[in-house]
Parts: sequence; C-alpha cells; structure tokens
Amino acid sequence: MRLEILPVPGIGHVTEGDDLAVLIGSAAPWLRDGDVLVVTSKIISKAEGRLVDVPADGPDRQAARDRVLAAETARVVASRGATRIVQTHHGFVMASAGIDASNVDKTRLVLLPEDPDASARALRAGLRERYGVNVAIIVSDTMGRPWRNGLTDVALGVAGMDAIRDHRGEVDPYGNELVLTQMAVVDELAGAGELIKGKCDQMPVAVIRGYLTPPLTEDGEGARVLVRDASMDLFSLGTAEARAAGMAAAATLPDRPGDTAPDPAVVDQAIASVADAIAPGTVFTQVTDDEARRALTAIVPGWPTDATALVLCSPPTPVGPVQLVRFGTDVQRLRTALAAVDVPAQLLPPPNGTTAAATLAL
Amino acid sequence: MRLEILPVPGIGHVTEGDDLAVLIGSAAPWLRDGDVLVVTSKIISKAEGRLVDVPADGPDRQAARDRVLAAETARVVASRGATRIVQTHHGFVMASAGIDASNVDKTRLVLLPEDPDASARALRAGLRERYGVNVAIIVSDTMGRPWRNGLTDVALGVAGMDAIRDHRGEVDPYGNELVLTQMAVVDELAGAGELIKGKCDQMPVAVIRGYLTPPLTEDGEGARVLVRDASMDLFSLGTAEARAAGMAAAATLPDRPGDTAPDPAVVDQAIASVADAIAPGTVFTQVTDDEARRALTAIVPGWPTDATALVLCSPPTPVGPVQLVRFGTDVQRLRTALAAVDVPAQLLPPPNGTTAAATLAL
Repeated sequence: MRLEILPVPGIGHVTEGDDLAVLIGSAAPWLRDGDVLVVTSKIISKAEGRLVDVPADGPDRQAARDRVLAAETARVVASRGATRIVQTHHGFVMASAGIDASNVDKTRLVLLPEDPDASARALRAGLRERYGVNVAIIVSDTMGRPWRNGLTDVALGVAGMDAIRDHRGEVDPYGNELVLTQMAVVDELAGAGELIKGKCDQMPVAVIRGYLTPPLTEDGEGARVLVRDASMDLFSLGTAEARAAGMAAAATLPDRPGDTAPDPAVVDQAIASVADAIAPGTVFTQVTDDEARRALTAIVPGWPTDATALVLCSPPTPVGPVQLVRFGTDVQRLRTALAAVDVPAQLLPPPNGTTAAATLAL
Repeated sequence: MRLEILPVPGIGHVTEGDDLAVLIGSAAPWLRDGDVLVVTSKIISKAEGRLVDVPADGPDRQAARDRVLAAETARVVASRGATRIVQTHHGFVMASAGIDASNVDKTRLVLLPEDPDASARALRAGLRERYGVNVAIIVSDTMGRPWRNGLTDVALGVAGMDAIRDHRGEVDPYGNELVLTQMAVVDELAGAGELIKGKCDQMPVAVIRGYLTPPLTEDGEGARVLVRDASMDLFSLGTAEARAAGMAAAATLPDRPGDTAPDPAVVDQAIASVADAIAPGTVFTQVTDDEARRALTAIVPGWPTDATALVLCSPPTPVGPVQLVRFGTDVQRLRTALAAVDVPAQLLPPPNGTTAAATLAL
C-alpha cells in the first residue's frame, strides 16, 4: 500500500465563468476513479466570480476591505491590532473571513466560495460527466490556528467522501476502547495536497491517489460537519473578548441568591480575594453556624426563603455618607468576586439592631 | 514531481529500552536519503519508558490519572466536564496533556516523550549511524483543535528539516507581497503520515518520500518553534475561564483614572449598559461641557489632576443608609461597565454642596 501526492500543472490563471472541470480534466487526463483532488479555494472563487473591486491603495482601500469583511462576518471571535478572527457565514473561524488579496489583481479581493460543499459537488459532477472519472473533491484553504505557529491547509468543502473517519467503538490490541478517534481526514488530505502545491509555483490542484478505494458513490455530508457549534466550543471567543464580556456581565449581575448552597471555603476565598481592594476596616463575615445564621436571617428585612448562606457586611467606623457609598462599592466587589466563582448573591439591608450595614444572601 | 506516503509494517510492539532505530531500520531497509519518517510519539514514549503505572479501574485509577495530569501540566487552559485542555511543559496545548491510555496495558498510562525534538534527533542519528541513511524525523501525535470537529496528527518533535516553510517576502504573479505564508509543513507531513497509518492496523511509522531533497544536513530548531507563546496568543485561555478571570478582575479593579481621555460616547454607552441593573432614580451624568466640568472638579475633594472626564452620580431620594449602600453598589456597577471598555475610574466624594453622592474621575 502506498499513497501518492501528484501535482496538476498547467491549469493557468482562472477567471470568472471558467469551467474548472474542463481546466482540471484537460490538465490531468490521467485522473483515475478514487483520486482525491485537493483544489485551492481561490480558483473556485475566481471561477465563481467571488471577487470584489477595491481601490488599489490608500485609505479608501482599507475602508472597502472593512466593508467586505463585515459582510462576510457572522460573528467576530477575536481582535488584536489589525487582526480580525471571525466566524464566517459558513461557520468557519478564520482570519479576515478568508478574504484574500494575494494571487489576484491589486484592485480586487477574493472571497471564499459561497458554498464550498456545493462547489465541490459541482466540480465532482462536472469531472464525472465530462471525463467519466469518479473522484472526490476537497476545496482547501490556508488557516492559522491557536497555540501553534504556522499555517496549514484545511478543507472548506468536500464531495465524494466523508470528512471524518470515525474509529469510535473500536478496540485496541490491549482491549481498550478507542474514544478519541474521529479523525478529520479531509483536513489531513488538504494539508498533504499543500505539501506539493507549496513546493511548486502557482499549483492550485493536487491529487492524492491511493487513499480512497473506488468506486465512490455518495457526495456525502461535506465539510460542514467539521464546523463545531460555538456553544460546544471551549474557545468560542478570544481571551481578551471573553474577559471583557466577563467584566460587562459583572456590571449587570442579577440581584438574587443561588439555587444551591455554596461551598463555605469558596465563599471565604472570594472574601479573601477582595481584601486588598476594599476600605481598611470593612469586614465581611460568612456566618456558617446554623443557629447564628437562623437568628440573623430572622431579623434581616426581606430575607429570601430560598437563600442558603449569609455574609454580614460591616463598614469601618465612623461611617458617614461618603463612607457608606464607598462601602457599597466594596460590597459590590465582593458580590462580583462571588459571581466569578459561580456564587450569586442578593443585597439586603443589615440585620435590625446590628452594627452591620448590609447583608448578602447567597 | 510526486510525493509518496509509505507505511512501515512489521515494527510490532515496542517496549522500554527498545532501540527504535533498529526496529525501524530493519522493518524498512528500503529507506532512502531525504525520506521523512513520521513516527507516532507513543512508540517513542514506550521505548523511552515514559509510562506510569495506574490501577486498571475504580476511583483510584481516576485519582492516579489526575495526579499524572497535574504533573504533566504547566498551565490549565480550559476545562469543561471531564475535559482538561492544558499546556504541557513543552508548551503544547493538548487535551489531558497528551496522556494516553490506548494501545497500552490497562495498568499503564503513556506520557508524551520528555523532549520530542531530542527524541527525533536521537532517532535520526541512530538511523544514520546504523544504516547510513540521512532522513528527517517527525514525532507526531493526535490533537483536537478549536472550532473544527475531528482530530489531526501534528508534529511534537522534528529533526532534519525546518518545521516551518517561510514564503514571506516573496511576490505573487500579480505583484502582491505574500504576507501570511509561514506554513507549518511538519504538521502537514504529520497529517499526511496519519492518512496511511490510520488506514492500517498498528502502523506507528509512515515515510514521506519526495518532499525533501537530499542531502539533508542540520537537525534544525525542532518543533519547538511551533509553540506560540501564550502572551502572543489570542486564545490563551478558554472562553469560560477568561470570562471568570474578567469577573475576578472586576472585583479588584484599581481605583484610579485612566491615562488617556475616554471617548464620551463610550462612557455614555457604559452608563446605558447598567441602566436596568441600578436602583430606579439613580442618575449617572457625564459632564462633557468643559466649563461645567472645570467648575465641578474644583469642588470635588481630592480630584486627581490627571483625570480627564467626570461622571456625577446621584442617588434617588429620599436617601438613607440602606439606599446609600445600594447606591454604592450601583456606582461600582458603572465602574465595572467602564472597565469592561477599558475606561478606568476613581471613586471620589460628591462635589461640595451638590445633591450628588459620588463622583467618578475618569
């Protein structure tokens, strides 16, 4: 067994309206059933007319680029300096929505194909109809990724094979069930294609021979199965953006106790975490003794029956209006520290007849 | 030009102390100068004895796994449920620090090689010394990634080639300088190797022929150049972790104005963002008129000379101690909302002789 990675030279410049099946099929009359064609998305975009006119330079160029980026963006994931990592309408997370100014006239930008899976299916059908070959198509593009320097080519569109090879449920020779074995083989194939495309000049198509066993049949579900839903992703937002979102959420924390009893140690840690930020002499006391807490909750006006823990908040003395406002900001600091460890809190007046100035019901 | 991906069958089970150069060299006497060997990290770990004994099952197994994970972890990046994405001591960000329980006896865990670049160099030297072949070595492992379903194989260690192919400074046929063209070719080679390894049973080594042109010389800098420093990474923390960090930071916001004048529109947006969270009747007024602001800053006790903007904070009336504490929490909400948009603020007493109860100096 061996796999081969072959270049397809002679495709030349692609322009709007070109029939890629003809360009590729005539450049590679040696295609065989079962070949996997890795096609750079840019030539598909060009053939499909996914180009936008922009000024060649100057501030208008940047403004035009920004407009194009906004149109191609479903959601901004992260920004730093001029870098914009966005989720496209397809669901792919890419720098600048995959918009590219290279290998195109200076007055144009190349957008990603509108539906790369559909592009792959159309090219596959075209090659089958015109040349009688049953191949798989991968539409590839170059992407960066978190944590690792350097870019790799991955799949944006697929037809004729499954994007993922699934080994789940298989058992290794030691009797361990394989659990993490959904391999994104189309991304590995796209990267393999790049190895030869990148060594050549202007080589938009590579062929991987020997990976699939003919006859291929269905187009399959395409590359869209590779898109992880943001709600399932541990990295759906950039770190700075998520941090800012956490701060913004802290500004509008709801005013209610939690559904479950907090861990007293976690509450004490939250109290300790704000110690250096609050006015000297301010005291936050978690009352953990059941009897003492019951006695206090009975005399806190409006104590919510579902609250399970109590923090007594006392300002430094003497206390005037300015000190009480400062004290309030410090109580809110504690409430924020508690929220950071998932302990909601409700602000209440102090227990009647005590020197405390506020109560937090957790 | 063509590349070939070849399997190396017949390596069999690897145990501690095995000489991998002998195992591979005798299984693949057909190796040639310039071949790239993609070697699954697990057989390197096994040969190097990077195994830990753990109970085969029960709660002790989980506790032992947790201890091993903690030891292999330099930094926790993200957690959800049982998933732990961590940065290893090498700098790689991986689920469970790459610790693996598959393809090994149930009472052992396989750790990553301690220094995969060194492992690659040693194997390369061994093959050269024993068999006279000058090859490149990639130590590979399987990783998930944000945003895309499915795993791919990437490089943990490299010897005999550069990890990154750098096209920066080159110019495309349209005269555009290529800017984003540092390709992580060793990751693409690792993925290409997986294509054939994954199709075979127990195939820990693949050879990529035709990619490099002999003679190879230096070992090179290894795969460590692929590790992006966390400070340079837009995704150095999981979204939930960064969000919690933002909340925790909100709890300990410093009490000082910013270095630069804030955009008044941004300040107004922050004020608007807390409108539904504050007590009815509380009013935050950004004083943008220069003359009015100068008049007020003159009568705010302790106004910092470097502050550039002023928000007047007035509680609802009538105002008693309980209302002032609540008012303080609301002022802190505004301060947090301002911090979320990078506008620091200092809490000050109200201007003398006004009905306001606090001032924020921005």
